Amino acid sequence: MKEEETSPHKRHLYLTISDAIEEQVKNGILKPGDKVPSIRTICADYNVSMSTAQMAYSILMSKSMIESRPKAGCFVSNWLKNSRDLPQASQLQLNSSGQTDDVLVARVYGTMNTKGTTRFSLGAPSIELLPITQLNKSIYQAIKELNGCGTEYENIEGNEKLRNSIARWSYNMGAKLTANDIVTTAGCLNAVAYCLMAITKRGDTIAVESPVFFGLLQLFQSLGLKVVELPTNAQTGIEMDALKKVLATQKITACLLVSNFSNPSGACMPDEHKQELVKLLSHYHVPLIEDDIYGDLFFGSRRPKTCKSFDEEGLVLWCSSISKTIAPGYRIGWVAPGKFKEDIARLKMVHSFTSTTLTQQAVANFLETGKYESYLRKLRHTLHTNSLLYTQAITRYFPTDTRISRPQGGLFLWVELNKNVDTTELFEKALKNKI
Amino acid sequence: MKEEETSPHKRHLYLTISDAIEEQVKNGILKPGDKVPSIRTICADYNVSMSTAQMAYSILMSKSMIESRPKAGCFVSNWLKNSRDLPQASQLQLNSSGQTDDVLVARVYGTMNTKGTTRFSLGAPSIELLPITQLNKSIYQAIKELNGCGTEYENIEGNEKLRNSIARWSYNMGAKLTANDIVTTAGCLNAVAYCLMAITKRGDTIAVESPVFFGLLQLFQSLGLKVVELPTNAQTGIEMDALKKVLATQKITACLLVSNFSNPSGACMPDEHKQELVKLLSHYHVPLIEDDIYGDLFFGSRRPKTCKSFDEEGLVLWCSSISKTIAPGYRIGWVAPGKFKEDIARLKMVHSFTSTTLTQQAVANFLETGKYESYLRKLRHTLHTNSLLYTQAITRYFPTDTRISRPQGGLFLWVELNKNVDTTELFEKALKNKI
Repeated sequence: MKEEETSPHKRHLYLTISDAIEEQVKNGILKPGDKVPSIRTICADYNVSMSTAQMAYSILMSKSMIESRPKAGCFVSNWLKNSRDLPQASQLQLNSSGQTDDVLVARVYGTMNTKGTTRFSLGAPSIELLPITQLNKSIYQAIKELNGCGTEYENIEGNEKLRNSIARWSYNMGAKLTANDIVTTAGCLNAVAYCLMAITKRGDTIAVESPVFFGLLQLFQSLGLKVVELPTNAQTGIEMDALKKVLATQKITACLLVSNFSNPSGACMPDEHKQELVKLLSHYHVPLIEDDIYGDLFFGSRRPKTCKSFDEEGLVLWCSSISKTIAPGYRIGWVAPGKFKEDIARLKMVHSFTSTTLTQQAVANFLETGKYESYLRKLRHTLHTNSLLYTQAITRYFPTDTRISRPQGGLFLWVELNKNVDTTELFEKALKNKI
Repeated sequence: MKEEETSPHKRHLYLTISDAIEEQVKNGILKPGDKVPSIRTICADYNVSMSTAQMAYSILMSKSMIESRPKAGCFVSNWLKNSRDLPQASQLQLNSSGQTDDVLVARVYGTMNTKGTTRFSLGAPSIELLPITQLNKSIYQAIKELNGCGTEYENIEGNEKLRNSIARWSYNMGAKLTANDIVTTAGCLNAVAYCLMAITKRGDTIAVESPVFFGLLQLFQSLGLKVVELPTNAQTGIEMDALKKVLATQKITACLLVSNFSNPSGACMPDEHKQELVKLLSHYHVPLIEDDIYGDLFFGSRRPKTCKSFDEEGLVLWCSSISKTIAPGYRIGWVAPGKFKEDIARLKMVHSFTSTTLTQQAVANFLETGKYESYLRKLRHTLHTNSLLYTQAITRYFPTDTRISRPQGGLFLWVELNKNVDTTELFEKALKNKI
């Protein structure tokens, strides 16, 4: 089914219907094995055409939420009955060593360009999902538009057209930014690195969620930072009370969180938590580095807000990129650093001077076409469907004491195996089987 | 005159002739105002055609080395008579504060994209000199070749085709590298930044030349490094004896030099100095960060070597880029970090992950065409000519106590004004006149 072939009105209706049924399944109103209303009933209840009702059901089927049985109708999928426990909330870890297994990490990244291997390790949508034709057009356009066809240095702050597009886009997530509030970087990790370099110094302690993306842990190590790992709920993110205690009792230089659909937990902080968090950190004058790289990949009906949207004092440094949505290899990220803008621009200037002129202009061109939103809609649908299919497979084939997250967006499933499983051995076995 | 229209044999001959006469002028064998041999004499002396002799003379004229007087013949240019003193060798400065005028630097960079202003501040060849058509072709080719048209992440170490090309190119400068010895970065400054981060920590002291590029000074400040500024000769670079004393008497964590055609002095270390330097630093186990970004822009007949070519212990981290030759805005640099390779790759991974896939492949494609060398030949000629023309203008119009460097390559002239000149006031005046 191609979404772009349907009118905006129809699209709205079939999504309303599929969302409503999904909601009932989640709330237990409809249970695994229950029969769902027939297509005819849906038509009558919602006053829609057969095709709209069928569209709503194909969506639910593609997500394995419902299954059709010949001559009997549609039923809530049985696999949902066996749904696994969520990963447990992590415990507070003061002065965590944050030790990462570098050798294993290097080996996993080493498989990055190995053909024929199914990669679950890399946080990026597969090529088939990317809007490549549109992006190529945007590159050609950029070559035509740019002075020197993109061979020239540009402003330190980054491509102005791109910063304008990001500023407009920021309204979707509740942050009202202007181009002047933004500095572009070589990806989101690069933005986070500059933020940490601007705010912290070797030996300082920062507060982070747990589990935290191992790439960030490696960055903390590289900068000589100590880490307090906050207890984190697999659905709602860090526990606010724990952070309160930590802030009241020890010196925290900065807080760093992936606020929406974290890697690896998939947790998304409710917007009220974000507001509370920003208020709390302001009280202690502690800057918040907000890594919002997955925020556009929500499975629900609206984009979650950012902490930046509640920031009144310029203490939130909002970092994001297009690496998880359209073009990882273009290396384009950015940060809206609030009151730290001059520091960030200076760090960028002295560490790498300007950004890649051509790919920045190309992304600006792509955003300007207005096709990002409709492209994202399809991408989200595919990612949500995949997430449910993998959950289903794990539920079926993994031991029953396996815990698994239920992300409402993003690219990750957090799978907690029985403590007795040797994960290095498992990695070797997987590699042999090209996974 | 278009060099590519001449056969390799002819090109070789006319360059031999013009080099020989230039040499005689430099050595004082031919003095300003002296008549140079007639075209006919050249033909007889070198056994060449009229056109070859004429070509040699046009080269000398384009550089303002000789001037033609109607019906009288060609003469060594008179302006050379008034040639100015070289800037003085700088003095040893231990624990230099390395203070830079950040406000002024920011203002200068702020003019970067102002149209209608003549920029002498930015170290990059002007657009008209860049091989833009070829580069665009290389981008189109890269889009066709690359998996996902360049949207995918690549290896941490960088594009393999590019690293292979750089490795082959390294033979020209006496370093025999393989692709595995190289890590690509977002420009040369980015490479130098990773080297410093890998080797030094806050509070360490490094030895550098003087004057040192203010962008590097800002980087040292940002990393909290102390600096020993070595006395530096405007022609031959740092004074080796001074470095010996410094190494014998204090703890130096690293040495950082622009070995060829430094910014701003234009100094180029003689190859014997390079060899001696590497030996000396090896004795003290002090790594050398060699910034060789201008090495390909030599005005003479052969590329100067690199310190890397004398490196037997892996203590030289050779950094360079194509930002000063073909495409500043592509942000492509690299480092051959010797024994520090794993550290550099790790720093790159945790600070920015991978490089821009598309522009790297494009540069690899451009290098593969073999057109880099013939392009560089023309670029060097233009830069040399410009350097002489500016020298001539400064000799004519600036006060007689102005000192000026005589670079044998690179993009810079170092002009030392009378100490009483207020340079900030001069900047304001220049800006008003769009310079």
